[in-house]
Amino acid sequence: MKKGIMRPGHVQIRVLDLDEAIKHYVDLLGLIETDRDAQGRVYLKGWTEVDKFSVVLREADTAGMDFMGFKCISEDVVDARREELLAFGCEVENIPEGELSGCGRRVRFTAPSGHAFELFATKEQPGKWGVGEKNPEAWPRGIKGMQAQRFDHCLLYGTNLDKTLDLFRDVLGFDLAEQVVTPDGTRVAQFLTASMKAHDVAFIDHPEPGKFHHASFFLETWESVLRAADLISMTDTSIDIGPTRHGLTHGSGDYHYPDHPPVTWDVDQLGKAIFYHDRVLNERFLSVLT
Amino acid sequence: MKKGIMRPGHVQIRVLDLDEAIKHYVDLLGLIETDRDAQGRVYLKGWTEVDKFSVVLREADTAGMDFMGFKCISEDVVDARREELLAFGCEVENIPEGELSGCGRRVRFTAPSGHAFELFATKEQPGKWGVGEKNPEAWPRGIKGMQAQRFDHCLLYGTNLDKTLDLFRDVLGFDLAEQVVTPDGTRVAQFLTASMKAHDVAFIDHPEPGKFHHASFFLETWESVLRAADLISMTDTSIDIGPTRHGLTHGSGDYHYPDHPPVTWDVDQLGKAIFYHDRVLNERFLSVLT
Amino acid sequence: MKKGIMRPGHVQIRVLDLDEAIKHYVDLLGLIETDRDAQGRVYLKGWTEVDKFSVVLREADTAGMDFMGFKCISEDVVDARREELLAFGCEVENIPEGELSGCGRRVRFTAPSGHAFELFATKEQPGKWGVGEKNPEAWPRGIKGMQAQRFDHCLLYGTNLDKTLDLFRDVLGFDLAEQVVTPDGTRVAQFLTASMKAHDVAFIDHPEPGKFHHASFFLETWESVLRAADLISMTDTSIDIGPTRHGLTHGSGDYHYPDHPPVTWDVDQLGKAIFYHDRVLNERFLSVLT
Amino acid sequence: MKKGIMRPGHVQIRVLDLDEAIKHYVDLLGLIETDRDAQGRVYLKGWTEVDKFSVVLREADTAGMDFMGFKCISEDVVDARREELLAFGCEVENIPEGELSGCGRRVRFTAPSGHAFELFATKEQPGKWGVGEKNPEAWPRGIKGMQAQRFDHCLLYGTNLDKTLDLFRDVLGFDLAEQVVTPDGTRVAQFLTASMKAHDVAFIDHPEPGKFHHASFFLETWESVLRAADLISMTDTSIDIGPTRHGLTHGSGDYHYPDHPPVTWDVDQLGKAIFYHDRVLNERFLSVLT
Repeated sequence: MKKGIMRPGHVQIRVLDLDEAIKHYVDLLGLIETDRDAQGRVYLKGWTEVDKFSVVLREADTAGMDFMGFKCISEDVVDARREELLAFGCEVENIPEGELSGCGRRVRFTAPSGHAFELFATKEQPGKWGVGEKNPEAWPRGIKGMQAQRFDHCLLYGTNLDKTLDLFRDVLGFDLAEQVVTPDGTRVAQFLTASMKAHDVAFIDHPEPGKFHHASFFLETWESVLRAADLISMTDTSIDIGPTRHGLTHGSGDYHYPDHPPVTWDVDQLGKAIFYHDRVLNERFLSVLT
Repeated sequence: MKKGIMRPGHVQIRVLDLDEAIKHYVDLLGLIETDRDAQGRVYLKGWTEVDKFSVVLREADTAGMDFMGFKCISEDVVDARREELLAFGCEVENIPEGELSGCGRRVRFTAPSGHAFELFATKEQPGKWGVGEKNPEAWPRGIKGMQAQRFDHCLLYGTNLDKTLDLFRDVLGFDLAEQVVTPDGTRVAQFLTASMKAHDVAFIDHPEPGKFHHASFFLETWESVLRAADLISMTDTSIDIGPTRHGLTHGSGDYHYPDHPPVTWDVDQLGKAIFYHDRVLNERFLSVLT
Repeated sequence: MKKGIMRPGHVQIRVLDLDEAIKHYVDLLGLIETDRDAQGRVYLKGWTEVDKFSVVLREADTAGMDFMGFKCISEDVVDARREELLAFGCEVENIPEGELSGCGRRVRFTAPSGHAFELFATKEQPGKWGVGEKNPEAWPRGIKGMQAQRFDHCLLYGTNLDKTLDLFRDVLGFDLAEQVVTPDGTRVAQFLTASMKAHDVAFIDHPEPGKFHHASFFLETWESVLRAADLISMTDTSIDIGPTRHGLTHGSGDYHYPDHPPVTWDVDQLGKAIFYHDRVLNERFLSVLT
Repeated sequence: MKKGIMRPGHVQIRVLDLDEAIKHYVDLLGLIETDRDAQGRVYLKGWTEVDKFSVVLREADTAGMDFMGFKCISEDVVDARREELLAFGCEVENIPEGELSGCGRRVRFTAPSGHAFELFATKEQPGKWGVGEKNPEAWPRGIKGMQAQRFDHCLLYGTNLDKTLDLFRDVLGFDLAEQVVTPDGTRVAQFLTASMKAHDVAFIDHPEPGKFHHASFFLETWESVLRAADLISMTDTSIDIGPTRHGLTHGSGDYHYPDHPPVTWDVDQLGKAIFYHDRVLNERFLSVLT
């Protein structure tokens, strides 16, 4: 949090069938529905999140990500970063308070990768779901499916990785935590964090701008990953890969501080980097983009 | 243990390079070397096993399984089963005490599947490794690698599944715990147990008799499976599949009693049966036989 | 299973308040109610059990255990053991089919410890709950609370440990898996098994006969033990001790075969034997008997 | 990291017997010795830490904590905080570069609680132990005992909790993540963080200033907590309490962001807050101070 940006605050996802998507995110992942708005958008959160929502689902003709928003520590931070985004050369749009239910004003911009991002500082804060702030229980009973705890990161495919890194590092205060480089030194994947997490957002080099691979949610333990994979199988959900350890970003202790040097993977080790156990890339993992 | 046969007691495996194999079984799997004999064979065991050894490695020009031995509750049981094996039509061979170091006499026979099996009742019993029988600690310090606890089962490929089942069920007192059947009702895989374990030995239908797929060792927890898969990657060992749940034999509670009906899998569900999470068969899993 | 006795099949427990008890066993432990009978008794099972029930709750003025029943592999085994029980000197009672809903005839006897036990071979077998016998899923969705998998064992306090061991070993085919002895060699605790489990029933020496400490249910993993302990705290249930490893019967690999020598604990190590981590006995653990 | 302070960087601990202490920290906890200096002090680190050391052991006649140091993101931050500490009224001492082997200059001050703390920005950075920064393995082979990953926090007992909170919040940029309050609203325990961790340092109200309860190290999983507790028992180390969940700071998702309201525990719930499962305070936990 070098420049006042705390965390991934929300992601708005376009889905082809809203009812199917709700079943997926609520019954399978275990997110909690917190609101619907006049446009028909559905608001969701993980049970450990204090803010009103972290996922917004919007029915549309094409699947993909509308935007990803980062929560700032104050409105002043939003203003200061807005000035720097303009100076960096970004187009910036002001979204008024209330456009998302329960969320304050947002500053939207497009990164060189082709993705829309937002900064905001204010959102209704009903607190963690099912546990209070006073003498709380360890966890609430009644969470469904995978019991996902919180929105963790997005993996995005797009253009101009170098310039995107400049923006996230210099304007937004993120660190480069891990990277994949080719033999000639070109960075083809970058994992960026504004926190102790191994990554808050990740970019893979891709000829088309603005593509979305996945939004990821935090599960507490390796056993919950097993049970999550079980549920995916039971419900015949499409899956890229069974439970595995990502070499990249999830080995070697799995946390980051600003003074840590980036971990570097050679591109010919990318199989191991992504699927530590199988050590081969999986076609499905690489090809499902929206 | 309907007819006095307790458990898989040992397996003798042919390996192409003994030093490499010892590295694999001792440093990676965590088995303990307990003896070598005049033939150059190496004897190993898991730390929780009370008997002297459960794995024998023999260097040879072709890899594969020489034989798998089952421990009986008494010498009388060995004699009684020997008579029934002869009545069933098996050729039976008597192996004298001491042919395997520390092991009593063995009765060897060939199953209709083409594999050699043995019955025996006597083996030196030095006890669990590193923990005594008096006020024992929970586990010994100093176990290597995956810390495999004990020899669990063999997966074998061969011919005449029906007749092999007859022999194991009627002569040796095993149960059919799980099976895979084709639409016309032909059994193409059978998982057999003499104990509470989901299987002590398994057979897959195959045109060639007597083929060996793997010997399996028991790890205590799902987390130890993760660390085992990590080690396999670190050491660049060939692996069929990362950590996964086998639908077949390892879901649904994972234990067996003689009054339990067999669990049946349709052959078109075999992917799910074997790799519950990916739900597709893996070429490597099916094709590495010796 | 040396003499045809497979496993603990059921336990009938007297409770002071039936509604409270159901809440405990169903909502907290996660057992499934399968029937009620004309006497008002409630029948329960763990989801992995194939038989109709394993726990029977009966409202009464005093809490405790009415009887514990073992399932035999055949009616012939019941008859043969009945003769041997009479020869051993036990009083034996015949309970007709249907006295417990869905259960065949039972043979009841009193052990020297003062507890009532039963043998039976027939019980309705609806199969595992929520998963079929054909292409089953790994586990069913909708299990509550601790998701207990199956009835595991009873811990009983009573008299005449030596004679009780004689009966279980010689008449019923159990093994002595673990024991606690005083410096003069007196056995003050004995853990007996008819299977691969570390114990199916356990006895602690006590001046009063026929006392009941607890019935125990099997949880799959150490993580499920954590979550179970969480639930106990959330619901303000009385608890003897938090998650811990029992030195006795749960260390050192935690399985038994008939050729394994018994593990012996010195009585001055009983604290460590029972509560491996704290290594002191807990007053509550020792004093809550019914 | 509101004011440039990243994390607990080191703690210097006085021990009565250096050889015994090394055995404890290296063989049991699994820390790695990285240096010794002319004064005889021993330097240690957890394997995931990039800096040269996080623990310094010093033999002395009384046990306790000499000081705890926080690493800042830059030397400028150290200077700026130094000014604010003076303005707050702290006595401040400059410790020259090299006083601790491999560490830059430090600014030492005493908090109102009576404890000595330090700020520093520069320390030799040999990287994670046993894994490189290029294509790293998931974890290094050869770590001992509990395989502690990194220095996590100190729990300190002392005076003037309110003024200590003022200093940590206003001067150093920490948040109050959790607190324990009496019925009249007095805060008797406070858990402070500069990061996403539930706490980086904690204070319990105590009549004597400057007392030390424990330094804590991060273990990766609940299973590693079990094995750690096993090791403590095997080695007959004194232990406060077996594996348990702290209600306080480790339930409810176990992470913190600056916009999270503090979690508040009533003092009459302190038992549950600290030992979630037993829900009673443990005499030993409260009374071993140095």
